[in-house]
Amino acid sequence: MFILLTYLKDIFHKLDNGRTFKHVGTMIKQNYFKLIATSGKARLGCLKTSRGEIATPAFMPVGTAATVKAMLPLSVKETGADILLCNTYHLMLRPTAERINRLGGLHSFMNWNRPILTDSGGFQVMSLANLRKVTENGVIFKSHIDGSKHHLSPERSLEIQQLLDSDILMCFDECPALPAKYDTIAKSMRMSMIWAERSRAVFDESRGKALFGIQQGGLEEKLRGESAEKLRSIGFEGYAIGGLAVGEEQSAMFEVLDFAPGQLPIEKPRYLMGVGKPDDIVGAVARGIDMMDCVLPTRSGRTGQVFTRHGAINIKNARHQDDPRPLDEFCGCPACKNYSRAYLHHVFRSQEIISSMLLTWHNLQYYQDLMRCIRDSIADDKFSDFVATFHSQRENGDIDPL
Amino acid sequence: MFILLTYLKDIFHKLDNGRTFKHVGTMIKQNYFKLIATSGKARLGCLKTSRGEIATPAFMPVGTAATVKAMLPLSVKETGADILLCNTYHLMLRPTAERINRLGGLHSFMNWNRPILTDSGGFQVMSLANLRKVTENGVIFKSHIDGSKHHLSPERSLEIQQLLDSDILMCFDECPALPAKYDTIAKSMRMSMIWAERSRAVFDESRGKALFGIQQGGLEEKLRGESAEKLRSIGFEGYAIGGLAVGEEQSAMFEVLDFAPGQLPIEKPRYLMGVGKPDDIVGAVARGIDMMDCVLPTRSGRTGQVFTRHGAINIKNARHQDDPRPLDEFCGCPACKNYSRAYLHHVFRSQEIISSMLLTWHNLQYYQDLMRCIRDSIADDKFSDFVATFHSQRENGDIDPL
Repeated sequence: MFILLTYLKDIFHKLDNGRTFKHVGTMIKQNYFKLIATSGKARLGCLKTSRGEIATPAFMPVGTAATVKAMLPLSVKETGADILLCNTYHLMLRPTAERINRLGGLHSFMNWNRPILTDSGGFQVMSLANLRKVTENGVIFKSHIDGSKHHLSPERSLEIQQLLDSDILMCFDECPALPAKYDTIAKSMRMSMIWAERSRAVFDESRGKALFGIQQGGLEEKLRGESAEKLRSIGFEGYAIGGLAVGEEQSAMFEVLDFAPGQLPIEKPRYLMGVGKPDDIVGAVARGIDMMDCVLPTRSGRTGQVFTRHGAINIKNARHQDDPRPLDEFCGCPACKNYSRAYLHHVFRSQEIISSMLLTWHNLQYYQDLMRCIRDSIADDKFSDFVATFHSQRENGDIDPL
Repeated sequence: MFILLTYLKDIFHKLDNGRTFKHVGTMIKQNYFKLIATSGKARLGCLKTSRGEIATPAFMPVGTAATVKAMLPLSVKETGADILLCNTYHLMLRPTAERINRLGGLHSFMNWNRPILTDSGGFQVMSLANLRKVTENGVIFKSHIDGSKHHLSPERSLEIQQLLDSDILMCFDECPALPAKYDTIAKSMRMSMIWAERSRAVFDESRGKALFGIQQGGLEEKLRGESAEKLRSIGFEGYAIGGLAVGEEQSAMFEVLDFAPGQLPIEKPRYLMGVGKPDDIVGAVARGIDMMDCVLPTRSGRTGQVFTRHGAINIKNARHQDDPRPLDEFCGCPACKNYSRAYLHHVFRSQEIISSMLLTWHNLQYYQDLMRCIRDSIADDKFSDFVATFHSQRENGDIDPL
C-alpha cells in the first residue's frame, strides 16, 4: 500500500546525505509523491510505493516481455534503476496475464521485486498489431506473433494490469501518430478521456496501487488543456503526457512541454511516455517532467550505439578496432571497467551475445548516471549549470582517435 | 612460470578441506601436474600454471572468439571453471592474433585472468574453412567469414598461440573424420607426429607455458600406440587424445579410451578433446582422463537444451509453460534460484537474450558441479559409487509434470 504522506510541516528537509533543500511552497496531502526541491521548473521528488521508493526525475528501463533485454534484473538494479516498465500488449499475448497471475504475479515471474509500471497496451496495439478495429468500446486486433484475435478495452487493460500485479497502472488510451488533423486529434483525445473515466471506474482502489491518467491532444495547447481538465476532474495518482515522441521534431515536443506539465496538478508525478534521447530527457526535466521511459538505451545496446557524456558512439566503426581505451573512463559499468573499445568492437562485429550484454549495461548505466546527476543538481538548485555542462561536454563529440 | 614440484615425499596429502587421500605410487618430479589420488582408473589432480591452479578432472568451457557465449567471465568463474579453451582459428581471422597481442594479450582482452588453453586451429580449419589445401607444410584455406586466404602450419599455429599468450598450447595436427580407412588414418597420424615435432621445436620454452602433444590414430590401438610412442619421445607437458568425438558412437570412443590413456605417460595430464555429454565425461574420467572441453553446455544453452542430474530437458516443451518449479531444486545457479521453468520456457519461446544467458549459466553450473562431485568421489575413493548414483539419477528422466 502506498504510504500516505502527511502535510509537509517544514520548509527544509534533510536527505540521507545531509544536504538541506529549499522546500517547494505547495502543501501536499494524502499523496504517495513527495516533491523535495525544485530548480527552475525541474523537480526533485520521491514516489513511494509498497515495493520501494522511486527517486525522481526517474528513467524507467523497458522490460517489454518480462525481461530488460540482455540484462539480469540484479544488473539493472545495480545501474541505479528503481522501477521498470513492462508492456501489457506483449505480456497479454505471451505468456498471458492469466498465466503470470497463476504463477504469482509479474514481479516474482521476472525476479524483480521493486516497482513495475505497466502501460495500457494501447500504444503497441496501434504500432504492432494487425487488422485493428477501433470503436468506442475498445480495440479488436490480431496478434503480431501468431495472428490470433484479441481485444483490449479500458476494462480489459485494467484487468490485465491488475492480474500482473503492477504497481503503477496506466489508463487505456488511443495515441494518434503525428502529424494529424486537429479534428482527428480532438476526437481521439475525447475518446481517450472517456476511456480514462472507465479505467478509473474499474480500478481496484483497495490494492494500494496507483493509476495514472494520460493527457492527449497532440501539439495543441487548447486540446491538451481540455484533456488535463478532464483528467483532473476524474483524479489520478499521477499524470502522463502521451502522444509525444511519435515522430515529431524535438523542438515541437519541447514546445508542448513548455505548457503541458503546467496544465497538470503540481503535486502529482508527471510522466512523459516513450522519451527519449539523453538531450530529450534533460530538456523534459527542465520543463517539469518527473518520469520517463524509452527502449533507446537497451535497443541501442543491441545495435552498437553507445551513449557517453560526449554523445553517441557507433562501436562498429573501424576507428575502435585497435583502441585500448574504455568507452568512458569515468563510467563504472562492467563494459567500461573491464573492456577496451577494441574488444567491444570485436564482439559486436562477431555478433556475440556479450556485446548486447555489455553495451546494454553501459547504456543503462549512462542513463541512470545521467538521472543521478540531474537529481543532484536539482537538490543543489544548480540544474541550469548542469544543463550547460551537459551540452558543453557533448559539443566536441567522442574523444579523438588514437 | 610453472611451479616445479619437488618429489612427493608422503603417501598422504592433506587438501584444503582437511580430508586425507590415498597417494598414488608414482614419483613425480619437475612437472606442473600433481596427481593427488586415484579411484580405479579415475584420477584426482592439480595442474599448476602461472595464472592459477586447475583442479582435475577439469571441464573447460569454450570461449571461441574470446567470449564464452552469453556469459560474463566473472559468471563463468562463479560456476567453478578454472580454465577456458579459446579457438586459434577464430581468433586468427578476427580480430587477429597480432591485434590481440598489441592490446596486451588474450587474457586482458577478454577479461579472464586465469588459465587459457588454445587449440591449434587444425580441427576448425577442417570443419569450418573453405577450399582447404593440406600439404606436409601445412594448410592453406579461405576464411568462412570473408573468403580471405590464410595459412596454418605448426610454426604459424605456435606463433599465434604465443601471440595470444596462451597458458596451454596445442600442437598443430590433422584430425580425420571417422569412419576412415586404416591407411588414411595412419598417414594422417604420421604427418601429425611430424607436425608435433616441428611444434615442439618452435615452442618458446623460456615463457613457462605448457605445450601438449596430440595423440591420433582413430580407433586403432596399434596406431594410437605408435602415436603415443612418438609423442613421448618428443616429450610434452601434457598429452591430448585427439581424433575422437568426431562422429563415432560412444561405445567406440570408450573402447579407445579403454587403452589410449594407458599409452600416455601416467604422470602427465591427459586431455580428451571435444568431449562431451555428461555421460561421456563420466565414462572418460573412469578411463583415466583429466581434462575435457566441449561446446555442448554453452551451445545447448542457446538452443533450449538443459542438463540436470535427471538428464536432459527441452525447455521449449509445452509441459513447462505453467510449471512454477526450478530446473533443478538443488542447483545454485541464478536460473534455478530465481526463475521457474515457466519463465525460462517463456523467454526461450520469446527469443529473449536472457534465455541464452540463464540456460548457459545453468548448463555450465551443472557441468562444473558434475566435475566437483567427480573430484570429491575420487578423493574419497568412491568414484564407482558416484558413477552408480549418476546413472541411477538419470534412469527415470526429468521430474514428473505437475
